[in-house]
Amino acid sequence: MSDDLRKQCFQLNMLLASSGLIKQTFGNVSILDRERGLMAIKPSGIAYSLLKEEDIPVLRLEDGKTVAGTTRPSSDTETHLVLYRNFPGISGIVHTHSTFASAWAQSARDVPLYGTTHADVMNVPIPCTDFMEDDRIGGNYEVETGLQIVQTFSRKKLDPAEVQMVLVAGHGPFAWGRNGQEALDHAELLEELCKMAFLTEQLRPGLPPLKDSLIRKHYERKHGANAYYGQK
Amino acid sequence: MSDDLRKQCFQLNMLLASSGLIKQTFGNVSILDRERGLMAIKPSGIAYSLLKEEDIPVLRLEDGKTVAGTTRPSSDTETHLVLYRNFPGISGIVHTHSTFASAWAQSARDVPLYGTTHADVMNVPIPCTDFMEDDRIGGNYEVETGLQIVQTFSRKKLDPAEVQMVLVAGHGPFAWGRNGQEALDHAELLEELCKMAFLTEQLRPGLPPLKDSLIRKHYERKHGANAYYGQK
Amino acid sequence: MSDDLRKQCFQLNMLLASSGLIKQTFGNVSILDRERGLMAIKPSGIAYSLLKEEDIPVLRLEDGKTVAGTTRPSSDTETHLVLYRNFPGISGIVHTHSTFASAWAQSARDVPLYGTTHADVMNVPIPCTDFMEDDRIGGNYEVETGLQIVQTFSRKKLDPAEVQMVLVAGHGPFAWGRNGQEALDHAELLEELCKMAFLTEQLRPGLPPLKDSLIRKHYERKHGANAYYGQK
Amino acid sequence: MSDDLRKQCFQLNMLLASSGLIKQTFGNVSILDRERGLMAIKPSGIAYSLLKEEDIPVLRLEDGKTVAGTTRPSSDTETHLVLYRNFPGISGIVHTHSTFASAWAQSARDVPLYGTTHADVMNVPIPCTDFMEDDRIGGNYEVETGLQIVQTFSRKKLDPAEVQMVLVAGHGPFAWGRNGQEALDHAELLEELCKMAFLTEQLRPGLPPLKDSLIRKHYERKHGANAYYGQK
Repeated sequence: MSDDLRKQCFQLNMLLASSGLIKQTFGNVSILDRERGLMAIKPSGIAYSLLKEEDIPVLRLEDGKTVAGTTRPSSDTETHLVLYRNFPGISGIVHTHSTFASAWAQSARDVPLYGTTHADVMNVPIPCTDFMEDDRIGGNYEVETGLQIVQTFSRKKLDPAEVQMVLVAGHGPFAWGRNGQEALDHAELLEELCKMAFLTEQLRPGLPPLKDSLIRKHYERKHGANAYYGQK
Repeated sequence: MSDDLRKQCFQLNMLLASSGLIKQTFGNVSILDRERGLMAIKPSGIAYSLLKEEDIPVLRLEDGKTVAGTTRPSSDTETHLVLYRNFPGISGIVHTHSTFASAWAQSARDVPLYGTTHADVMNVPIPCTDFMEDDRIGGNYEVETGLQIVQTFSRKKLDPAEVQMVLVAGHGPFAWGRNGQEALDHAELLEELCKMAFLTEQLRPGLPPLKDSLIRKHYERKHGANAYYGQK
Repeated sequence: MSDDLRKQCFQLNMLLASSGLIKQTFGNVSILDRERGLMAIKPSGIAYSLLKEEDIPVLRLEDGKTVAGTTRPSSDTETHLVLYRNFPGISGIVHTHSTFASAWAQSARDVPLYGTTHADVMNVPIPCTDFMEDDRIGGNYEVETGLQIVQTFSRKKLDPAEVQMVLVAGHGPFAWGRNGQEALDHAELLEELCKMAFLTEQLRPGLPPLKDSLIRKHYERKHGANAYYGQK
Repeated sequence: MSDDLRKQCFQLNMLLASSGLIKQTFGNVSILDRERGLMAIKPSGIAYSLLKEEDIPVLRLEDGKTVAGTTRPSSDTETHLVLYRNFPGISGIVHTHSTFASAWAQSARDVPLYGTTHADVMNVPIPCTDFMEDDRIGGNYEVETGLQIVQTFSRKKLDPAEVQMVLVAGHGPFAWGRNGQEALDHAELLEELCKMAFLTEQLRPGLPPLKDSLIRKHYERKHGANAYYGQK
């Protein structure tokens, strides 16, 4: 049944609406049921205050065909589909235009890893894509946005199971995770890391990144083979 | 009946009060019933906590005469009237002193178009008027404020149906729309765009504006002839 | 009866607590009943969550003697008394350590008048005192703080009925008004003006102040002999 | 009974969760019962929305052995234990990644004492440790973090009963007090002082610290032998 998927997707989008990460309709959450190959996503341009569970469209991962719902899915739908198809471990994606993350994206800069808050999340800078080439913008733009993210990860040799967020140059952030809640958490952490890095550069221009040993320690204690953060 | 207009205007002003865009009485919303030629607007200097629906004055668009209500209308009333008379498509106007928008207005700078969040709203920088000349300030100041906005749009060849916000140099922002809710939405987006652009300049001084192809793509997918954002 | 004075003072301090202008006990409101020569003020260092109406001490303006209440009044009490004694038109004072105002005070800079939001409130920069001389600090410090504000107003030829806020260098802001609510309003506007001026300088370093004609226009329409802002 | 300790620790962690100082699980509060030599602390990586009183582990100060609770304690537990063992007067510790404090920690800078808000809390800059040496990072990292704080206080001749907060370079802040509520208050003040100092440096780069006489006056009136701030 796609009803559970819709319900969950609806609730996650409502959480996003109250997260402080978005204004109006500038954001969306999707989740994927990988076994059945079905994705639920926010419909395009419907105000959160009017959004109802039954408005959530459900699409086939394979071909993007709508299998439930009568609304038009988010205009970013094709980007989500490309990410799900290319990043096998992920089942939730959040797109926002959160303030500090968007400012970094507009600046087209990777977010340097300045501290352990960042290293608790990932052990490399938050990657930013290049600006898209004109012919790709003129093509299937949303597909190209997804492909550009995938290619950025490939070129930088990043594992989307470890680096679960990206900035699209000139545009804004995407975050993901093994489920929708994780994706939301990463979207929130991304914004916070972007704010901290912004302030750090104001306080001490030219600061080098955090030393490798500290990055490794913090990342490993939370995500390594011998991680001891969290329960069990 | 002007009662509906008042009620709606009252509710929109209360939404403004809780939007975080204004302090105390530093802002106002008006709406226009174009068929009947009637405008409702916040009264001048009444605290939002004391404002009642019956306090909302209703004025004739033609000559600004009050036709309902006993309060003195907002001191910015004449500016609203001039905008309604010159921008035929609009039926809601919001004036605030929101923080980042006012800082840009005080800086007397157009807000550069640095990202797709901006391009989702409009395809040019947010225009800022020049500082008003002394003889106009000494004349009918609020009328001149409206005229200056109109002239800025004319000089820059901007369409008020497409560019629905402006900064008045040294003063603050006005936003508008086809109705009051749209005007409120634009006032909120304006503040957010001003904040993002501020942060972007801090992160990367001297950054050029977003490339034209990306501006066009984002603007067109939402507002163009073949727009595919939103429902229907 | 001093009970009304206490009740009002209690309520105003609770409003301050929820205003976002202060952390913990870093702020206080006093109000004055000029006819009876009695001042009520927040007691020193009592958490707002524990504050009760009967904790509010009432003091004689003349000599600062407590006439009601068993608590020790705010450590800033003498500063309030000096201001009430020297600024005849005021009957409410608010002291905070609000963030942007304190940053300007720490910078020991007058806050330049960059825009009409500021000119709607007052027609000069927000004054900042000099740093206090060591012998005054070693004397009756809180009295000297009040005297320094009074002397700053005298030296700069400012009228405390028109300029209802000040920064004490290295310390933070005081605001006042004809009653406690006005003082609170001014404390809030002061913080907002400090934030706007901060952002303006970041956006456009070296910007001159707003032109005189605009300052005059905005100040006069709200506070001049022919003011037309507000009701009646 | 350790139940009271747990209950109190649970409540303090819930206060931290709603304080605005932390995102998700990036923070923890511990409290100590010095007489019984027992510490209660947040468990590792449990979302605040799911945290229950019985999840709070209780450990022996002496050897860190868990005496109540089945959860794994915070990964920062050893740091807390080292601080309690070396700073005899303290019985509450709060660790956060609050935004401005973390930015200063990432910048590896002491926070200069620019104003009386700071001097009301302590009479020296907020100390920041050095970056930890690689061999210590590779050793018992959390113990070393605690030791590094203790050594920083020793080297700078700081009294942890007077200076109740520290930044760990590249990481973030720890704050403490005679009990958990005091520790929370200090964590909140630390963030605010970091924000004020940040803004002050933007407003006036190169500003020297506040003059000694003002520091002494404000610190002494609140914390000196003849303090007259607060009740009794």
